[in-house]
Amino acid sequence: VRVRQRRRQEVLDAATRVLAKRGYANASVKDVADELGILTGSLYHYIRTKEDLLFWVLEETHRAVEQILRDVTEIEGLDPLERLALYTRRQILYNLENRDRVSIYYQDMESLSADRVEEILGHRRAHERSIVGMIREAQSRELADRSTDPGILANCLFATIIWPYRWSMPKRRSTREAIAWQCARFALSGVVGAAASGENGSGPIPPSARP
Amino acid sequence: VRVRQRRRQEVLDAATRVLAKRGYANASVKDVADELGILTGSLYHYIRTKEDLLFWVLEETHRAVEQILRDVTEIEGLDPLERLALYTRRQILYNLENRDRVSIYYQDMESLSADRVEEILGHRRAHERSIVGMIREAQSRELADRSTDPGILANCLFATIIWPYRWSMPKRRSTREAIAWQCARFALSGVVGAAASGENGSGPIPPSARP
Repeated sequence: VRVRQRRRQEVLDAATRVLAKRGYANASVKDVADELGILTGSLYHYIRTKEDLLFWVLEETHRAVEQILRDVTEIEGLDPLERLALYTRRQILYNLENRDRVSIYYQDMESLSADRVEEILGHRRAHERSIVGMIREAQSRELADRSTDPGILANCLFATIIWPYRWSMPKRRSTREAIAWQCARFALSGVVGAAASGENGSGPIPPSARP
Repeated sequence: VRVRQRRRQEVLDAATRVLAKRGYANASVKDVADELGILTGSLYHYIRTKEDLLFWVLEETHRAVEQILRDVTEIEGLDPLERLALYTRRQILYNLENRDRVSIYYQDMESLSADRVEEILGHRRAHERSIVGMIREAQSRELADRSTDPGILANCLFATIIWPYRWSMPKRRSTREAIAWQCARFALSGVVGAAASGENGSGPIPPSARP
């Protein structure tokens, strides 16, 4: 069983490299077989279609980010902001360490069939609800800006989590950790917003810059 | 001349719709001609290749965002944070009103030839330098968190500006303005960060959530 598990992981990793490099439209099942140094026929032991490879990569990405969320949720004794900060840092670090998966997620998801897109979006919506819930909790304890919609704050948090894979390519883990740390500080300050200054509803944008 | 100007704008708009809808790989010059209700041959009056259409759309996008930056820079009497806030709101609003252009920018830029990619990246780097400059100025006046790298803060700001085109599809302008306003507040709070609480270097992430 462990050998089979490891073999599946190798197939997944090879598919990830090939899809990220060539893009879904240009990649073929044969490319993935070549990457593994096996015959194309052997690959059909794991999948039936090229789309199965894509779906597998996307599902695996969701499995991993849901695990991060679960781990962070299970830690006791954190207030909602501490939990959000830890979640944000770990997600950024994951994205920087799995750049290929993230790029496939955002470039190729629409190549899936409609019901598989729906399945992935279902995962995403559940994940989003959890984060919105944490933000709501922070707001209700007056730890975070209550004047901004928690759904908008959650999406701004996701933007901060997702974007580093496009602008940074750090090779060293210490650099990735520094980026995750600084981006998380940005995002948490954004969520806290006006709550930090005590002047709810205005925040750091001075009145003269308002519409 | 005005007729020719308007005609060029119509071609650009049609190319934008077609590229956004079909993606660069699947779109053809004929599709754009069909969208305009003209013969493909007539379209070659404006461009030589399909790639010219893509480049034109991307250049036009940069022209527009550089105009926003210039407008905001020329307003007198704003401090660096007020300027950044206004810039952020206007860029988000532009992105929400030009969703097609933004999606082409992020989906298809790599389809350009190497020297044209370099040209677009040149525009982008100059734009980024201006924003980093504003953030540095805010930091040096102690209006913004000095413990975070201004380049990282600029990229987090860009993330907040770019991402709404993926998660929101507001039809009404008032909704787009509300989103731009709330996202800008998030981003500006993120830039201000620790400066708001007076405890430089720590910010809103409590020590217990640190690595």
